[in-house]
Amino acid sequence: MLSDVNLLYKEMYAHFNISRYFSSKEDLCVCVCVCVTVSPAAERLRHILREEDEPTPTLFTEMDTLQHEGGEMEWKESARWVKFEEKVEEGGERWSKPHVSTLSLHSLFELRTCLQTGCILLDLEGYSLPQIVDDIIEKQVQEGLIAPEIREKISFVLLRKHRHQTKKPIHRSLADIGKSSPSSECPIHFKCVFALRFNERLCGFSRFLFVLLGPNGKTKSYNEIGRAMGEVDFLDKPFVAFVRLAQAATLGGLTEVPVPTRFLFVLLGPNGKTKSYNEIGRAMATLMVDDLFSDVAYKARDREDLIAGIDEFLDEVIVLPPGEWDPKIRIEPPKKLPSAEMRKSVFSLNELGQPNGNAGGGAASAEDEDLPAPHELGEELKFTGRFCGGLWLDIKRKVPGFLSDFYEGFHIQSVSAVLFIYLGCITNAITFGGLLGDATDNYQGVMESFLGTALAGVVFCLFGGQPLIILSSTGPILIFEKLLYEFSINNDIDYMEIRLWIGLHSCLQCLILVATDASYIIKYMTRFTEEGFSSLISFIFISDALKKMMSIFNYYPINRDFKPDYLTSYRCDCQASDQVALNSSSPLGLENISDYSMFNFSALDWNQLSKKECLSFGGSLVGKSCKYVPDLAMLSFILFFGTYSMTISLKKFKASRYFPTKCRTLLADFSIIVSILVFCALDYVMSLDTPKLHVPTQIKPTRPDRGWIVMPFGKNPWWMCLASFAPALLVTILIFMDQQITAVIVNRKENKLKKGCGYHLDLFWVGILMAVCSFMGLPWYVAATVISIAHIDSLKMESESSAPGEQPQFLGVREQRFTGILVFVLTGVSVFLAPVLQYIPMPVLYGVFLYMGVASLHGIQVAVGTGVSEFWERMKLFLMPAKHQPDFVFLRHVPLRRVHLFTLVQITCLAVLWILKSTVAAIIFPVMILGLMVVRKTLDLIFSQHDLAWLDDILPDKDKKKKEDEKKKKEKKKAKSEEHNNSDEEVRTTIIRCVRCS
Amino acid sequence: MLSDVNLLYKEMYAHFNISRYFSSKEDLCVCVCVCVTVSPAAERLRHILREEDEPTPTLFTEMDTLQHEGGEMEWKESARWVKFEEKVEEGGERWSKPHVSTLSLHSLFELRTCLQTGCILLDLEGYSLPQIVDDIIEKQVQEGLIAPEIREKISFVLLRKHRHQTKKPIHRSLADIGKSSPSSECPIHFKCVFALRFNERLCGFSRFLFVLLGPNGKTKSYNEIGRAMGEVDFLDKPFVAFVRLAQAATLGGLTEVPVPTRFLFVLLGPNGKTKSYNEIGRAMATLMVDDLFSDVAYKARDREDLIAGIDEFLDEVIVLPPGEWDPKIRIEPPKKLPSAEMRKSVFSLNELGQPNGNAGGGAASAEDEDLPAPHELGEELKFTGRFCGGLWLDIKRKVPGFLSDFYEGFHIQSVSAVLFIYLGCITNAITFGGLLGDATDNYQGVMESFLGTALAGVVFCLFGGQPLIILSSTGPILIFEKLLYEFSINNDIDYMEIRLWIGLHSCLQCLILVATDASYIIKYMTRFTEEGFSSLISFIFISDALKKMMSIFNYYPINRDFKPDYLTSYRCDCQASDQVALNSSSPLGLENISDYSMFNFSALDWNQLSKKECLSFGGSLVGKSCKYVPDLAMLSFILFFGTYSMTISLKKFKASRYFPTKCRTLLADFSIIVSILVFCALDYVMSLDTPKLHVPTQIKPTRPDRGWIVMPFGKNPWWMCLASFAPALLVTILIFMDQQITAVIVNRKENKLKKGCGYHLDLFWVGILMAVCSFMGLPWYVAATVISIAHIDSLKMESESSAPGEQPQFLGVREQRFTGILVFVLTGVSVFLAPVLQYIPMPVLYGVFLYMGVASLHGIQVAVGTGVSEFWERMKLFLMPAKHQPDFVFLRHVPLRRVHLFTLVQITCLAVLWILKSTVAAIIFPVMILGLMVVRKTLDLIFSQHDLAWLDDILPDKDKKKKEDEKKKKEKKKAKSEEHNNSDEEVRTTIIRCVRCS
Repeated sequence: MLSDVNLLYKEMYAHFNISRYFSSKEDLCVCVCVCVTVSPAAERLRHILREEDEPTPTLFTEMDTLQHEGGEMEWKESARWVKFEEKVEEGGERWSKPHVSTLSLHSLFELRTCLQTGCILLDLEGYSLPQIVDDIIEKQVQEGLIAPEIREKISFVLLRKHRHQTKKPIHRSLADIGKSSPSSECPIHFKCVFALRFNERLCGFSRFLFVLLGPNGKTKSYNEIGRAMGEVDFLDKPFVAFVRLAQAATLGGLTEVPVPTRFLFVLLGPNGKTKSYNEIGRAMATLMVDDLFSDVAYKARDREDLIAGIDEFLDEVIVLPPGEWDPKIRIEPPKKLPSAEMRKSVFSLNELGQPNGNAGGGAASAEDEDLPAPHELGEELKFTGRFCGGLWLDIKRKVPGFLSDFYEGFHIQSVSAVLFIYLGCITNAITFGGLLGDATDNYQGVMESFLGTALAGVVFCLFGGQPLIILSSTGPILIFEKLLYEFSINNDIDYMEIRLWIGLHSCLQCLILVATDASYIIKYMTRFTEEGFSSLISFIFISDALKKMMSIFNYYPINRDFKPDYLTSYRCDCQASDQVALNSSSPLGLENISDYSMFNFSALDWNQLSKKECLSFGGSLVGKSCKYVPDLAMLSFILFFGTYSMTISLKKFKASRYFPTKCRTLLADFSIIVSILVFCALDYVMSLDTPKLHVPTQIKPTRPDRGWIVMPFGKNPWWMCLASFAPALLVTILIFMDQQITAVIVNRKENKLKKGCGYHLDLFWVGILMAVCSFMGLPWYVAATVISIAHIDSLKMESESSAPGEQPQFLGVREQRFTGILVFVLTGVSVFLAPVLQYIPMPVLYGVFLYMGVASLHGIQVAVGTGVSEFWERMKLFLMPAKHQPDFVFLRHVPLRRVHLFTLVQITCLAVLWILKSTVAAIIFPVMILGLMVVRKTLDLIFSQHDLAWLDDILPDKDKKKKEDEKKKKEKKKAKSEEHNNSDEEVRTTIIRCVRCS
Repeated sequence: MLSDVNLLYKEMYAHFNISRYFSSKEDLCVCVCVCVTVSPAAERLRHILREEDEPTPTLFTEMDTLQHEGGEMEWKESARWVKFEEKVEEGGERWSKPHVSTLSLHSLFELRTCLQTGCILLDLEGYSLPQIVDDIIEKQVQEGLIAPEIREKISFVLLRKHRHQTKKPIHRSLADIGKSSPSSECPIHFKCVFALRFNERLCGFSRFLFVLLGPNGKTKSYNEIGRAMGEVDFLDKPFVAFVRLAQAATLGGLTEVPVPTRFLFVLLGPNGKTKSYNEIGRAMATLMVDDLFSDVAYKARDREDLIAGIDEFLDEVIVLPPGEWDPKIRIEPPKKLPSAEMRKSVFSLNELGQPNGNAGGGAASAEDEDLPAPHELGEELKFTGRFCGGLWLDIKRKVPGFLSDFYEGFHIQSVSAVLFIYLGCITNAITFGGLLGDATDNYQGVMESFLGTALAGVVFCLFGGQPLIILSSTGPILIFEKLLYEFSINNDIDYMEIRLWIGLHSCLQCLILVATDASYIIKYMTRFTEEGFSSLISFIFISDALKKMMSIFNYYPINRDFKPDYLTSYRCDCQASDQVALNSSSPLGLENISDYSMFNFSALDWNQLSKKECLSFGGSLVGKSCKYVPDLAMLSFILFFGTYSMTISLKKFKASRYFPTKCRTLLADFSIIVSILVFCALDYVMSLDTPKLHVPTQIKPTRPDRGWIVMPFGKNPWWMCLASFAPALLVTILIFMDQQITAVIVNRKENKLKKGCGYHLDLFWVGILMAVCSFMGLPWYVAATVISIAHIDSLKMESESSAPGEQPQFLGVREQRFTGILVFVLTGVSVFLAPVLQYIPMPVLYGVFLYMGVASLHGIQVAVGTGVSEFWERMKLFLMPAKHQPDFVFLRHVPLRRVHLFTLVQITCLAVLWILKSTVAAIIFPVMILGLMVVRKTLDLIFSQHDLAWLDDILPDKDKKKKEDEKKKKEKKKAKSEEHNNSDEEVRTTIIRCVRCS
């Protein structure tokens, strides 16, 4: 008998891997037994799981309980698991929200005992439920667990009808599990608890384990069921069976979803404590959805393997103290789960001496988190050393996906993205076109801006390395053009010709940069530089949007002294000027007044003239209300602010609980379009004369005296061709920095782009387009940061077919050329869309710009806890008292003081850049990005590499050093663990000696 | 040896209360041992905890670990617990957010072993750390646990300096714990883990238990410390001590906070697995903050009591499966915790047969939740049966708190509440005053409205039963007055006199209702009725606010055809009418034109006249812009919407993370005032002539031909005095229902009012005021639902001095008379405040009204999970797919279909009421509330009492029935458990027989 006791004792302790310290000799010997059996569970599992099989499929688990309804017994579904638990709520009409299964230690131990004593049938050949039930009963009879007489009765109960929760076709996500399952095998179904009511007090003390599931609180049905089952003591032992079928089989109406069943767990018990019934079933189901245990269940060779699986599970459970948590709270599934692979791998790497090195527990492992994944730029930015090596690699990388770049664009999301980006692009084209027109006396006007945008955009999106990038005119280029035009006017140089030569030189320089793989220096740009640049651009966007809005207030001044009572005193009359003389050169109202031009001016009824006419005839406006325009400014403000806040609200609506997820996603995707439409409609209803979007309606150069092709020679002295090399250098730096830093931001690892990028290819096309645009007298184009980010943002993908309760994961971006091309084609044909576009008020578009700026400040929102420290998030920390700050990973590792210091450095840099940008120095602004990189380099002196790894990325050379350090550490560790093994050996021999001595 | 093994085995199993089923005879005997020892832990604890001592104080627990810094060893604080865990983050400069301690099973088992084998000193007389350390070491030496030679060395290490996290004065909330502690004793401090580094591999296998705390990852310091401690094996056993001092003592610089120390737990161990170090310490600390265990620790008589405490703790822990939860996530403390009392009481009620009836575990107990707490109306609404019995009780209840009703009002929150409610009141007074003036030909105008509001309000707030209620004119009264006035004009009856008689009759009827305790019927008003009424009133508020806003658009029409270019064509001229004749009865501009009246009209320069003048002289306005007023409507809209949304945003800001809680609370309290000020400032800056708040500036009746006192006789026939009884009845019903239902809503149990209410007293004063107002010719007043809710809302209190991480709890409302009185005094002196008030634009006040309506729809927001089913929340459920619905408790218990049906019934009732209210039937509208109660009564037939208990409250008679049912059930249960005990007895005897046989 001693051996039996010892065995039990061993088991119990072994699975906690606890060894104990005793002061007396005898105790020592007892302890020895424990040490010898250190973690047989782990050893067993290592053995099974080492076999490299295909991964096991996801399990769908269903728990049915025996209920008595309408005079008949039936099995009723009471809960189901895909990854998380969903319970049937009281009343039986509703699934609860998916939640983390909170178990009790009891139930787990009780389950363990069930499996130890019950009947285990592994790899049973089964094809139908009756046959399987027969087999189970047969086995039980053979093992002497039940009397042969009661076969029929058990079989009768087990084959009762099954009723499932959902009568309607099952939830999409469940049906999808099959598709997402890695193996070709059909998804496997696990049938969990049959709990059956028998006569009470049949089995004496065993009732602690095998409990009864009564219909919810209806005490009267007790006896009825008793009668139904017969009053004889036909079962003198509880009935437990765990069945694994050799092949998954479809067992008729057994399951809720039409997936074949592989496992069955049957538990029939007499009445006992009425409280802990379901719990064993829930524990079993929770075990079966555990990745590790389900692996074990698939591969188990015998009962002991299953027990070992439970023991390992117990070893890793997370315990919440009862006083600090209310068990009634259903815990929402976490945003991110630790991967099962890690658990498995820890497991196979186990050293004998520390079989549960990590078992110190969940909580402990949080302490020794590794550094965040290093910034990986991949091969794209390697310095190949060959001529055009990078370009060649880029082309090789992009060619295979070229076809998919088109068909992957066919998605409803693309419609929204195209409309959104299109509106952004044409607003930009009009704005910059107007400004360029002003700056260059209409040599490049709105028409050129439209054509150029369309041409450059289409070409770039067709052939570029990163087709998600949107090309646009940018501020620095605008300033350059302005200075150049002034210079040429002052020095009598032909502007278009010198501009052509600068463009050609710049193109050549870009090609040289491409050929020499110069883009590789981009890898020295860390998050610090990116954030500085993109924040600055976002701020410029926001301030521009606000400035434009304010300019409307200036353009349509409000009469602040207006008193309704003095209505009669407000008027504006046109008074004839003293010298009545038609200013024939007046460009305004030329056509309108052609009728009047025949009249004698003195005979003119000045009071009948409109404002424009009056002014063009040289009249002057006199009156209290002349300077003012009513309502327009206010309405514009309402449109502006309304568009912005409605877009923000609709985006946020995605996170609300209303309407099905699909509707919400659609609404969020189309939020900008919806807002634009709503406020265009409002504007239309108000029918006030707000400023509208006007696009050119004819394709012809803005300035009548220029053609579509610029001739390279003829108007300037020959040496100009060479001299333009110098300004071209500045343009090249502008282009290079603007283009590549935007590319880096777009290609950030958080965006999870899969098709790779092509820095060299991008620059190649930008250079070529530069030359083409120069020849055609169109503006120059380069990547636009904010619009590109908005483009990516509108093409985000999230996982759909996840288990109930699992949070949707950000999967990546629809990488394709389709949306980009469509945007620019639309831009090109905008000339024909003018009748539609004229309904869009400008304030609405300014609202869209404000939204774009604000949204790109936040970047693509990364879930908290990914370890990425966002500039904007860190800014917010300044305003939060330490105890309210969110639990960012980097805050766990870097002292707040250092975080603030780092953020302050960034803010200072931003301020300096902002000031530079506001002066004429704006032209060297992109060069200042290089300055940012220098600042980042000096930060290495102030901050430790550890802090920088959390707050920023580590510079490439430092990165290498770090890795080497880590390698060394690992080696050291290895050496140590070997030592440990040796010591274990020692212990073991001591133990064996002890055993002999006892 | 067998006995030893058995003992161990017993222990291990006993604390899980697992009995096992075995099929063979011998096993049966083994099992027997288990059954006999069922839950010795529970028995032990029951014994200790039964002693009725004073409650144990809250423990502050601090964990220090030995670290090696700057060449010296010191104890550094690494975590602390008040209720939740706060850890010192990496870098050691920051406390983590308070979180639920997630432990591992391992650490708990290891801790258990520590306490079993270590040295336990209970009630040690200690006054200083050195002495205590000496005592501990002495004890260890005596017990032979350590060699006497190493005393000095251990003592040296234990007395190293302690360094704490916060150098600045400790966090307020920690210092406050002492105050909030129920016992007069100083808060007790618990010092948790000393873990010390010794030479490695000193103690063989014991290293699994006593682990070493290394400085974070700095491997090189290993040897240095080794040297510091001497290279000799001066310790051949690990060192564990749990000390409870007889009296709490202040142990010098040991603790972070200046509180005396009562407990010490010391753990010194050799090097071992480097992973599970802290975990034992964390487990100990978590145990000490557990209410049950800390009780045990205070009262433990010996080592076994402590072990029993751990076992009970283990029994109740909540287990999270490793695959469904990421241990890195720090779990935020829950909003509400299960009370420790419940756990303790469960414990003392334990039956031997089911020692862990609830131990089926946390999760299971959620299933059989009891019904929500029944609707308690308390004694206030009991039918006393005596004359004025209820009134007498009300007075008795209110008198003791009368003084505190004044001084409790002195709080910063009151300032905001007074301003907010004041603005609401005067806006209401002006609106209703204006409407009443229209309806009664200025017999009651704005002036009367102001005076009446002030008079009635002050009296009610001074002497009323529920001074939180705000009196105001209400819609039904307005309609009644209108009808009455029309009736008297048509029948040549003096309006004021008949009104006086109606008021007197109504007053009398109210007093009769008071004297007969008629208010007791209010208890048949359940949540269903309350919600129907208050939602309706809220909707009326919202629709009124919107209507008023829209009326501004009508009042200041926008010229939609305005084209800036045709500016010159917009004008408005005053044209002399054909028959120039001064309409002397024109009420407008009477004073202004007095100068002109001497003029000859034909000589008048019509063009110079203002609009008013022009119209008053009989001229007509001609011109395109005459009908329009620019900008005012738009600006009004911006002010209206801005005030509303800014208030909402500021209220929400309270839940954000920015700025300290105090700032945010202040801002949220003052949100309405801040919004009003901001938008008044905006209005001032725009300096447009928006409609402003104008209050009367002189105290005199609005109609010059009436005085301040109405004479009861003289103008009408004598029988009118008696006949007015009939209409008075209608008024009484109006008053009674309006008043009492508002009182019920204000006195809702969710508002946690502590001073009790006084329905009879309220009605008494309303009746008296009715008579007084009738005599003075002032409007009648009754409780205003929405403003009263807003009043309560602005006086909410939340707990402040909670343990870090605990959510602030809603404590109740500042119940006092001060704010109410001040509001009405201010209303009275508004006449003198006119110069200030004229800066407030009306649209801003409409925005405030909109906010009030929306806020009162939501009621006082009750935390999710209190089991209260709010109408508005249930409305929202219609829009949510089942799987996204929040986890309301009632949804767990009532099928969604039934919930929706219930909500639909409510919506239908609301719609019917709304329609009624919009017709002339509005006058019988309060009577319809009785209809609602009838509908509620019929719902008893459609819904089960179980469902109604969750969705609504149970009607009083049903409630009794329910209780009786429950009693019966309980009795049944008792009988059953006795049966159980019997069966247990049986088992026990079987067992004893078995033991003998073995």
